[in-house]
Amino acid sequence: MNYGARNKIKATVKSVKKGDVMSLVKFEVTLPFEMASVLTTESCEELNLQPGDIVTLIIKAIHVLPVKE
Amino acid sequence: MNYGARNKIKATVKSVKKGDVMSLVKFEVTLPFEMASVLTTESCEELNLQPGDIVTLIIKAIHVLPVKE
Amino acid sequence: MNYGARNKIKATVKSVKKGDVMSLVKFEVTLPFEMASVLTTESCEELNLQPGDIVTLIIKAIHVLPVKE
Amino acid sequence: MNYGARNKIKATVKSVKKGDVMSLVKFEVTLPFEMASVLTTESCEELNLQPGDIVTLIIKAIHVLPVKE
Amino acid sequence: MNYGARNKIKATVKSVKKGDVMSLVKFEVTLPFEMASVLTTESCEELNLQPGDIVTLIIKAIHVLPVKE
Amino acid sequence: MNYGARNKIKATVKSVKKGDVMSLVKFEVTLPFEMASVLTTESCEELNLQPGDIVTLIIKAIHVLPVKE
Repeated sequence: MNYGARNKIKATVKSVKKGDVMSLVKFEVTLPFEMASVLTTESCEELNLQPGDIVTLIIKAIHVLPVKE
Repeated sequence: MNYGARNKIKATVKSVKKGDVMSLVKFEVTLPFEMASVLTTESCEELNLQPGDIVTLIIKAIHVLPVKE
Repeated sequence: MNYGARNKIKATVKSVKKGDVMSLVKFEVTLPFEMASVLTTESCEELNLQPGDIVTLIIKAIHVLPVKE
Repeated sequence: MNYGARNKIKATVKSVKKGDVMSLVKFEVTLPFEMASVLTTESCEELNLQPGDIVTLIIKAIHVLPVKE
Repeated sequence: MNYGARNKIKATVKSVKKGDVMSLVKFEVTLPFEMASVLTTESCEELNLQPGDIVTLIIKAIHVLPVKE
Repeated sequence: MNYGARNKIKATVKSVKKGDVMSLVKFEVTLPFEMASVLTTESCEELNLQPGDIVTLIIKAIHVLPVKE
C-alpha cells in the first residue's frame, strides 16, 4: 500500500474518546522518524530555515488520518 | 505561547528544497511523543480502534506548520 | 460563481446528523466526473502514477465544503 | 486496509503534471458513490440541508490523498 | 449562494504570483469582520479562551479558497 | 515567534461554545490586514484573478488555529 503523503508514522492507540459526531483518539509514537512540511517559499524564507535549526511542528488533530491494516 | 492544536512536535531541520511558489522541508524527530487525531465517530467505530492497536498515521506535508522561536 | 478549487461535484443530500458542535451530512453522487489531487512531486514519483492506474482517493469529511444555491 | 476517513473513491489516473515541488494529478471517477461532509452545526442549519437538496461539493485538490495498492 | 463554512471574507486582489503548479495570491481586507475556529475542546480548555482575550489566528494559505462572482 | 504560515490575524475572542469533543470559538477582527491564498495555477487562471478584483475568501473554521501568548 502506497500513500501519496510524505508523513507515515507507526503509532499505538492509547485512548479513544467518542463524541456524538466527532471522536478524539490519542497515540504513542516511540520510534525516531522523519517528518516533512510543505509551505510557501515566502514563509520558508521568512523563517530562514537551515539544517540543524530546532522548530516545533504544529498539526491540528483533524489532519491526522489513522490507517489500520 | 499556547497553540490551539493537539500536536506539537520538537524537530530538527534536515533539508530545505525551495520551489518557485512552494517549498518542501524535512525534519528529524528523535523524542518519543504523543499524537492525537480527530475523526468522525463513524470512522472511529468502523476502524474499531482499541488501546494497544498498531496504526499508521498519515499526514499530508501541507498540514504540517513549522514554528521557530 | 467561480471557485478557486479543482473539485466541484454535484450531489444530492441523503442524510443529516446534527451534533452539539459538528454535523455529518451524507450525499449521493451519480454522475461520472473528474477529480484532481495536489501532492508533493516526491510522493508522486514514489507512487509512480501513470495514466490508467487504479487508485483510491481518500478525503476526510472535514475537507468537503457543501455549497447550496 | 481500513482508513479513518469517510470518503474513499475508486478512480483512474488520467494525467500527471509534475512541478518543481508540487504535482497535479487528474483522475476519472465513473462509479456512483456516496460522499460525506463534516461542518459546524451552525453552518448546517444556515444551509438548511434537507434530504433531496442538490448541492455542489467543493474540495481543494490539496486535500485529496491518492493511495495505490 | 450559501457556503457550509463559517468564514467568508470580502477581499480585494493585490497581487498574483503564478508558479508551475501552484500560485500565490494576496488580498487586502479592509472591513472589520468576525472569524470562527473549531478546535478540540481539550485544546480550547488548555488555551482557556475567554471573551476579550487577544489571540493570533494562524491560517495556512493553502486553506483559503477564493470565490469570484 | 515565527510561523510558517502566510496568514496571522490579531483577533479578540467573542464567544466560546464547548461541545463534547469539538468546540467553536468566535473572534472579532477590527484591523485591516492582508491575506494570502495558495491554489493551483489552473484554478488561478480559471478565476482570472487580477489586482483590484473583489472576491470572497472562504475558510472552514477547522482550518483556523488560535494562538495565545
